[in-house]
Amino acid sequence: MEKMDSFLAVVENFKVVFLDSYGVLKNYRGLIEGVQETLDFIQSRGIEFRILTNDASRSQEQQAESFVRAGLVGIPPEKIITSGMMAKQYLQLKIKGGKVAYLGTPNAAHYILQANLESVAIADLDKHDLDDIKAMVFLDDEGFDWNYDINKTVNLIRKKNIPIIVANSDNFYPVAKNDVSIATGGIAKLVESIINKRFIHFGKPDTQMFNFAFEDINHPERIYGKEDILMVGDTLHTDILGGNKFGIKTALVLSGNTSASEADMNIHSSGIIPDYICQSIVG
Amino acid sequence: MEKMDSFLAVVENFKVVFLDSYGVLKNYRGLIEGVQETLDFIQSRGIEFRILTNDASRSQEQQAESFVRAGLVGIPPEKIITSGMMAKQYLQLKIKGGKVAYLGTPNAAHYILQANLESVAIADLDKHDLDDIKAMVFLDDEGFDWNYDINKTVNLIRKKNIPIIVANSDNFYPVAKNDVSIATGGIAKLVESIINKRFIHFGKPDTQMFNFAFEDINHPERIYGKEDILMVGDTLHTDILGGNKFGIKTALVLSGNTSASEADMNIHSSGIIPDYICQSIVG
Amino acid sequence: MEKMDSFLAVVENFKVVFLDSYGVLKNYRGLIEGVQETLDFIQSRGIEFRILTNDASRSQEQQAESFVRAGLVGIPPEKIITSGMMAKQYLQLKIKGGKVAYLGTPNAAHYILQANLESVAIADLDKHDLDDIKAMVFLDDEGFDWNYDINKTVNLIRKKNIPIIVANSDNFYPVAKNDVSIATGGIAKLVESIINKRFIHFGKPDTQMFNFAFEDINHPERIYGKEDILMVGDTLHTDILGGNKFGIKTALVLSGNTSASEADMNIHSSGIIPDYICQSIVG
Amino acid sequence: MEKMDSFLAVVENFKVVFLDSYGVLKNYRGLIEGVQETLDFIQSRGIEFRILTNDASRSQEQQAESFVRAGLVGIPPEKIITSGMMAKQYLQLKIKGGKVAYLGTPNAAHYILQANLESVAIADLDKHDLDDIKAMVFLDDEGFDWNYDINKTVNLIRKKNIPIIVANSDNFYPVAKNDVSIATGGIAKLVESIINKRFIHFGKPDTQMFNFAFEDINHPERIYGKEDILMVGDTLHTDILGGNKFGIKTALVLSGNTSASEADMNIHSSGIIPDYICQSIVG
Repeated sequence: MEKMDSFLAVVENFKVVFLDSYGVLKNYRGLIEGVQETLDFIQSRGIEFRILTNDASRSQEQQAESFVRAGLVGIPPEKIITSGMMAKQYLQLKIKGGKVAYLGTPNAAHYILQANLESVAIADLDKHDLDDIKAMVFLDDEGFDWNYDINKTVNLIRKKNIPIIVANSDNFYPVAKNDVSIATGGIAKLVESIINKRFIHFGKPDTQMFNFAFEDINHPERIYGKEDILMVGDTLHTDILGGNKFGIKTALVLSGNTSASEADMNIHSSGIIPDYICQSIVG
Repeated sequence: MEKMDSFLAVVENFKVVFLDSYGVLKNYRGLIEGVQETLDFIQSRGIEFRILTNDASRSQEQQAESFVRAGLVGIPPEKIITSGMMAKQYLQLKIKGGKVAYLGTPNAAHYILQANLESVAIADLDKHDLDDIKAMVFLDDEGFDWNYDINKTVNLIRKKNIPIIVANSDNFYPVAKNDVSIATGGIAKLVESIINKRFIHFGKPDTQMFNFAFEDINHPERIYGKEDILMVGDTLHTDILGGNKFGIKTALVLSGNTSASEADMNIHSSGIIPDYICQSIVG
Repeated sequence: MEKMDSFLAVVENFKVVFLDSYGVLKNYRGLIEGVQETLDFIQSRGIEFRILTNDASRSQEQQAESFVRAGLVGIPPEKIITSGMMAKQYLQLKIKGGKVAYLGTPNAAHYILQANLESVAIADLDKHDLDDIKAMVFLDDEGFDWNYDINKTVNLIRKKNIPIIVANSDNFYPVAKNDVSIATGGIAKLVESIINKRFIHFGKPDTQMFNFAFEDINHPERIYGKEDILMVGDTLHTDILGGNKFGIKTALVLSGNTSASEADMNIHSSGIIPDYICQSIVG
Repeated sequence: MEKMDSFLAVVENFKVVFLDSYGVLKNYRGLIEGVQETLDFIQSRGIEFRILTNDASRSQEQQAESFVRAGLVGIPPEKIITSGMMAKQYLQLKIKGGKVAYLGTPNAAHYILQANLESVAIADLDKHDLDDIKAMVFLDDEGFDWNYDINKTVNLIRKKNIPIIVANSDNFYPVAKNDVSIATGGIAKLVESIINKRFIHFGKPDTQMFNFAFEDINHPERIYGKEDILMVGDTLHTDILGGNKFGIKTALVLSGNTSASEADMNIHSSGIIPDYICQSIVG
């Protein structure tokens, strides 16, 4: 590693911190040890924060509860911004009535319901009656039979020219020390590559989510500029690329997708350059 | 064509209209006939408007002057939003001091100067003294020797791991009835594909520019929602894809990149679906 | 359609015909009606033929049997050339000893066994004992749990830098009038796109298979040139692209992947141009 | 580096060696020192050899002369196999009459003339009279105005649905210690990416060229198998990928495109694995 920064020394220069969730606050083993102290430090210094997570499988409330269950306190639901919320906003604005087909768990479908639309799991879709289907959303990598339902999705998209939304652009996520699992974005990429149509992707690195968070922290009585904000994440292609493009400072942590041994190589070969590199957000 | 909408009948349902410039207001022949009447109609109805253009070769003022010179009045500089302004904002926020190398005309380099940075044309770069070069920007497809300077750019990027900014993501633009010219984004794509690094792209379809325009029209005394806005453009992959993703209604016009004969095929094969299709913004 | 050629009138100008199997001789409904007469015509004229099929799930013998079972006689096993045979040849030449992991049915694994290597289904792989694994092969889209085993494959490839072989490059195949199913090549493309490594692809459009067939028909006593051969297929991106590149004449048939209504559009938009277009190989 | 093999110790185990030219026999400084001794060694051991070069700018004879001029003797023209010869073969077989437009020097156009076709430089093309143009070939990165002629090529391809041939698939070539120049394949990739059509690529890694060499060495009186052959090259994505796929052993040398410092990283990140790694073919 060229250099390694202390996270606490870095973060205290900012007025706002955007934190990725998986790989930053927790990983496959659970909470990252010491994360409560860092969160307490952030709050004690009056630093505003938001959690920006590429996740469309659970609501803000469910995610907040899962932090509490894991033993991390101080993250209210309204400070969690999910890529599923971006997809929901799109559906609300662009799809007027009708049904929205989805891949994911029934729980993830609440993002569709919140947009006042009817949801239909791909598994339950009647392929001979597609008239009412107005959009299709990739919500989660779980909750369906990959073989049967991905094929059914391919055929739906071939037959109906409707907006296809990818509510989480991640390719994969870590499930053990050296093991990953393909995420929603990876499944969508399969379908996209063999269908050759443009899907609409939400979540980091897209700037839409950063902008949502930016508007969320700004109020008439308290105005923040982009120079006040630090984005912290474990993934170059989502957290760091997106933060850089949005014009805020970025810190890569090595507690998740990017290991210490590969950080330099990945930064060099990708051209995605964080402003800071920290072991984790602890210490 | 499945259906064809009257632009005036469509636009009067909105409070704001975002207009692409090239292919919508003008094309290779000059102003589109009747565009002044449409602009007057928009203003007479109190509809707010902005011009959103993937152009980093000229400033807002220069673009406003060129409308006037062509005979179109009523577009003040501050209503023109260029992708070069997005690049400038990035440079201001992320690059602190040093020099920024660029491909383009010296005129385009004003976006770098406005960010309080020193600009160096790739042609003038001393390849043995790259220490001060902190970023590289693709600004324009003119103003340099393609063979010599594109090769010099490739070598700069191989040697220095710096942010590479593409200030206009368009692949090409029409220069005659059936002829196009490769645009800045097309040149950047060449370099990106053989270098295999991630560049930072500004301009439509990226939502950053839509968001800039959205913030620009909103003031405490006058608040617009996304449902109030119509995006009008001639290109599916930039104007329509970007507008759809931002959550606003979109109208494809057939006076530029997309001809009447290919609109249906392109919409179907791309999966990018405009809400309206109009012959042009006239009538 | 610009023009439509009679297959029998076309084929009688050639001394050799290479025929794709699925979409040409048969489709999801079974044998294409009248195909026996065409095969008889070819043989009565002394035209040499080979079947070139992107299939690594069954052996030559099994494929020959399936033609007989369907009611088509006159295709001996040795005239069937499968992409699995190309993969087998690669394994024989490049992998010396050890085990080869695979995705597919146990039946497909005979291609590995014929290369004198030990095969291990991904499902049976002990992820803590990968030392003996010398290569990985995508053989079939069936015979495994997509969710569990594709994820296991991703993790194998992340951990071991071994050759990855795709024994069938097809993206999908028709399973009903308007329905397709993702094929081996489509699954491999998913993994390739999120892993960012170069896999080794066999099957059309790669010229290796055409060359294998070319060598197979040529004997000291009977020499054919490339100008003597016609390639017949239903898919532009595999059959026609590969045949064109190999330097032989190509005929697109509309009885499979490419329908009459989309042939012109697909030829124009892809730039892949067959020498002849026929409704089917019948008539 | 994991291991480093002595080239002479490796090559003496083979009966045939295929050698890339640029980066193996010579580089930007001229002949690699000691290459004459290695060539003499190969010949003294009775090892058959061929030069396989991704070059469509010069004929076999011109390339042989350039070796002699540089001081390397013992390479007759007929042992040099160029990617231009593959393109010529394609034109001979698939294009019957008419004119072939090209990008490159007039000298490179001899490959078109040898196919008994008329050549027209893109610069000389009358864009209002394209009826006779039956194909377009990318031959060289020199001999034309990049800005003007690449744009003219884009417009030709948009207007005429003809076969587009890329006679050299290399992205770039070294011109100084740390400097590269974009090659023919890189220019073609630009056009391909913004046109979205499939071009026909010749040269390594495509197996066609390996097969041509394989047939060239085999005679009734002397039969070689693939296990007898070693491919030697400096580029993973062309020489090594192509050789591996063709089923022959491969040796990466570090005297050209791939430096010692990046070889391990590039092998690991690409998944393209040579059987041997040698400093150069000397020693």
